[in-house]
Amino acid sequence: MADEVVLLDFWASPFGMRVRIALAEKGINYEYKEEDLRNKSPLLLQSNPVHKKIPVLIHNGKPIAESLIAVQYIDEVWNDASPLLPSDPYQRAQARFWADYVDKKIYEIGRNIIWKKNEEREAAKKEFIDCLKLLEEQLGDKTYFGGDKLGYVDIALVPFYTWFKGYETLGNFNIESECPKLIAWAKRCLQKESVSKSLHDQDKIYESIVEIRKKLGIE
Amino acid sequence: MADEVVLLDFWASPFGMRVRIALAEKGINYEYKEEDLRNKSPLLLQSNPVHKKIPVLIHNGKPIAESLIAVQYIDEVWNDASPLLPSDPYQRAQARFWADYVDKKIYEIGRNIIWKKNEEREAAKKEFIDCLKLLEEQLGDKTYFGGDKLGYVDIALVPFYTWFKGYETLGNFNIESECPKLIAWAKRCLQKESVSKSLHDQDKIYESIVEIRKKLGIE
Repeated sequence: MADEVVLLDFWASPFGMRVRIALAEKGINYEYKEEDLRNKSPLLLQSNPVHKKIPVLIHNGKPIAESLIAVQYIDEVWNDASPLLPSDPYQRAQARFWADYVDKKIYEIGRNIIWKKNEEREAAKKEFIDCLKLLEEQLGDKTYFGGDKLGYVDIALVPFYTWFKGYETLGNFNIESECPKLIAWAKRCLQKESVSKSLHDQDKIYESIVEIRKKLGIE
Repeated sequence: MADEVVLLDFWASPFGMRVRIALAEKGINYEYKEEDLRNKSPLLLQSNPVHKKIPVLIHNGKPIAESLIAVQYIDEVWNDASPLLPSDPYQRAQARFWADYVDKKIYEIGRNIIWKKNEEREAAKKEFIDCLKLLEEQLGDKTYFGGDKLGYVDIALVPFYTWFKGYETLGNFNIESECPKLIAWAKRCLQKESVSKSLHDQDKIYESIVEIRKKLGIE
C-alpha cells in the first residue's frame, strides 16, 4: 500500500513551512489542505484535539501534531534519504537545543515586534537582534546549520525568514545590516527547491500582517 | 575510558529530577553537583551560556542542556538497556507530544497556582485540573504512560508529583479526588527505585515554597 500523507496547514505559518520543507527534502508526495483558521475543519479538530492548531501531518490516517515533532517523525520514517538530524547523539542533542531555541525565542519575540507598540516593541527588537546574532554565531562559517547539508535547525529557522519584511518594516530596522551572514544563509537555503517551493514570499506575508493589524485596529 | 558523567542540578527542580530518573533507569553512575541558583557556578554559566539554567548533563566534558533533550540523549547513548522512548516512530512522536504538553502546560500553569493570587490562581487551578484529567485519560488503564515499562512521558511528568502538595495546599484543592488514577500512577512510579531515589519529598518542597513566598512577600 502506498503511503497516504496529508498536511493540514495554513499558507503563512512558519511551523507549517517546516513540515513542507521536511516532506520536500524526503521527496514525499502529499495532499496539502489549507485550513481556514477562523473556521477550523472537523478534520483538524479531530486530528489535534489538544491544541487545535496547524500543522498536522496525517500519515496513513494517523495524526502527528507540533511541527518539530512532525519533522523528527518524517526523518525517522523516511530514513533512507536526506537525513535531517545528525546521526551522532551529541550532535542530535545540539540540533534539538537550537531548534527548541528558535521555538522559544524567535517566534515569541517576533510576535511582540508585530503586535505590540512603543517600549514593548523596542525591547522586542533589541532581543530579536540579540537572538539572531547568537544564531549567526552558531552558524559560523558553515554552509548550513546542518553543516554541508540542510538539516533540522535550518528547517526550524528558515521559515521565519519569510516574516522578516514584516518584522523589519513594522519595527523600522534592518536585519541584514545586523546579521549579514544569517541573511546570506537564508538566501542559500532558498536556492534549494525543497525550501523555495515550501515558503511564501515576504511581500505577501507582510501584506497579510498589515491587513490583520488594520482589522484589529493596531497601527 | 570510563564515561565521566556530571549533573548540574538543583534539588527541587522537576526538570533536574527528569534527568536523575533517566540516569538511574540506565544505571549510570554520575557526579551530582548542587547549584546555588542565586550564585550560579562558573561551570553552569559556561556549560549553558544561552539559558544559564539547570539541569545540565555533562558527558565526557560535553554539556547537554534542557531536560527533555538530555533525557533523549541519555536514551540514545546508553541504548542497550531500558529504552525510554518507544522504537516505533509513531509511538515516539506521541511520547514527544505528551512530554511537550507537560512542559507547555503543567509547569506554567502550576507556577500560577503557586505565585499568583485570587482570580488568576482560581483560573490556573481549573486549567491545571483539566490538564491532569487529559493526561489521566491518556494513561487510561496502562501501568505507565510508557505501557508496561516506565518511559519518556512518565519521566517528563512524575517529578511534578513532588510539587502537588504545594499546588494543593496553596490552591486549596485536592488532586486525588479529581484524578485518582493519576495519583495511583504516581505512587506506582515511586515504587521504582530509579524514581524514589531521584525525587524529593512533597513536604520538603512545600516548605521550601512557603519560605520563598514569605521572602517575596506573597501570602
